[in-house]
Amino acid sequence: MQRLVNDPKNYVDEMLAGIYKAAPEAVGHAGDDLRCYVSKQVKKGKVALITGGGSGHLPLFLGYVGPGMLDGCGVGGVFQSPSPDQILAITKEVSQGAGVLYIYGNYGGDIMNFGMAKDMADMEDIEVREVIAGEDVLSSPKGHEDKRRGVAGIFYVYKIAGAAADSMLGIDEVERLARKACANVRTVGMALTPCIIPEKGKANFSIEPGKMEIGMGIHGEPGIKVEDLAKADDIVAEMMKPLLEDLPYVKGDEVSVLINGLGATPREELYIVYRKVAEILEGKGIKVFNNYVGEFATSMDMAGMSISLFKLDKELKHYLCMPFETPFLSQKQLKED
Amino acid sequence: MQRLVNDPKNYVDEMLAGIYKAAPEAVGHAGDDLRCYVSKQVKKGKVALITGGGSGHLPLFLGYVGPGMLDGCGVGGVFQSPSPDQILAITKEVSQGAGVLYIYGNYGGDIMNFGMAKDMADMEDIEVREVIAGEDVLSSPKGHEDKRRGVAGIFYVYKIAGAAADSMLGIDEVERLARKACANVRTVGMALTPCIIPEKGKANFSIEPGKMEIGMGIHGEPGIKVEDLAKADDIVAEMMKPLLEDLPYVKGDEVSVLINGLGATPREELYIVYRKVAEILEGKGIKVFNNYVGEFATSMDMAGMSISLFKLDKELKHYLCMPFETPFLSQKQLKED
Repeated sequence: MQRLVNDPKNYVDEMLAGIYKAAPEAVGHAGDDLRCYVSKQVKKGKVALITGGGSGHLPLFLGYVGPGMLDGCGVGGVFQSPSPDQILAITKEVSQGAGVLYIYGNYGGDIMNFGMAKDMADMEDIEVREVIAGEDVLSSPKGHEDKRRGVAGIFYVYKIAGAAADSMLGIDEVERLARKACANVRTVGMALTPCIIPEKGKANFSIEPGKMEIGMGIHGEPGIKVEDLAKADDIVAEMMKPLLEDLPYVKGDEVSVLINGLGATPREELYIVYRKVAEILEGKGIKVFNNYVGEFATSMDMAGMSISLFKLDKELKHYLCMPFETPFLSQKQLKED
Repeated sequence: MQRLVNDPKNYVDEMLAGIYKAAPEAVGHAGDDLRCYVSKQVKKGKVALITGGGSGHLPLFLGYVGPGMLDGCGVGGVFQSPSPDQILAITKEVSQGAGVLYIYGNYGGDIMNFGMAKDMADMEDIEVREVIAGEDVLSSPKGHEDKRRGVAGIFYVYKIAGAAADSMLGIDEVERLARKACANVRTVGMALTPCIIPEKGKANFSIEPGKMEIGMGIHGEPGIKVEDLAKADDIVAEMMKPLLEDLPYVKGDEVSVLINGLGATPREELYIVYRKVAEILEGKGIKVFNNYVGEFATSMDMAGMSISLFKLDKELKHYLCMPFETPFLSQKQLKED
């Protein structure tokens, strides 16, 4: 394993110790548990937003905690869910009395543990709602959208809900907008190599050299097909087809585009991909309002990428344009037109 | 080659086409040549700053073009220098009549081509100065600093010169500050895997599994030793020794720290590294003023990282704290203290 690790058992806690040292004014932990990651800059009285999930996906999940985005994050082991107790501790720490919204990806362990935390919070009279993001088009067919995995497109759900909460909207409105964001985002991904989990020291799945897997998940969940590695433009065209058909899009629609690198894929190639995505959208008469190109939901040292489209209307655009700032990412106020 | 490529010959131009599509308001190209990368937001009357170098290192070099940073960048093929004609075209495009400063890394091809461009600009009555950054401590011993390669630490030279030019200082002052930044920055790097150049389709050097190379350059230039892969903390301790001895540092000094991922190394591990770097600095009584952890000078899909220290005084801190914004990176105004 060509990686920078001490004892693999300490991987997550040492990573967290590094983040807390690097951004001590922005983030800290609830109580003694480093994995109860919270913002130190929570606006008083707002709806609190909490996410969580396995480690190994930076900047997902904790990288989205900060003003204009989320307030806390339960940090699990690599590719493992945070515990209900951790989520509850974060909930109590960041709750401002205006309700708490859990936003997380559609994975069994997360659903179970966030669900238990919600029940425990209810018993302490903290109102908790949940929005589960799942936008990986190829992970489950149309008609079975509720089985879709959450991947990089959750960025848009965080962004919209974060801006809504920062605008001091009530829990009903924040939840409505988070659900609307979920309904408007779609992702298709592909992988070129597996990744290695530090505690295992080897890949838990394989992709042969010269092959690629379309639709593979960020934990190596099987995709829809293994094919010979094609040219970048052909791969993009193949991925854009289900992406555009699923919602579906029509001429005149406006979108935000997110090109996400899985880890080892050079940023150079994400721009080669963006070039083709933009060209296809132009050809369909779909306007690109703005774009994000970089690493938003990685999978350790996996090579590959995902394309997310977020269909905009006036309301979503308003919240998308609002600023945010975390130790990992930031955005200035964008022009709404 | 598990990479997203069309015809490898078009790698750089397709990447550039993607960047221009992604950030059309921020950057463009001088004339018809995509590789003559210029800011569209150059402040009138300022000293113009130009860099350049081979592709394959994003966000280096072109990612540092934008307000508060640089004004133009000559974009070479992967690991190849831009041509003198390209650098001249950029020079003519961004020159504001207040002088032009070329800032680039200490590599033979770049020195030759920027030198020729400078001579050609002189003939057109454009005053050009040059500052060559070389801060890779292990690439050449003390007493032979002029042979050191430029690596991720050039970030600080760009940052200081960019802020100085943005403050409307004259060419003498901007050059002086850029040289002062060079004199105050030191980097040590290590690599865990080679990288693959698209046109070659295979690695042009190798690192065996279970080994690491301390001091390796970002194009695979040999380091000072190949060793068994050690624990992250031991690697950091080994790298910090020459870094702290070279300048040298004394108790009470204040530094900015930059932890740079070479491409395939997960961000998680850069924080494991930062944690240990901060601990060592604390132990020596050296204060960390601020830090940058992420990818600043990559080498395609190479795994590994570098540590840069930038020794601060009141003047450097002032320019370090000023804001900048490019399509790749941004910084708000920091508090000077």
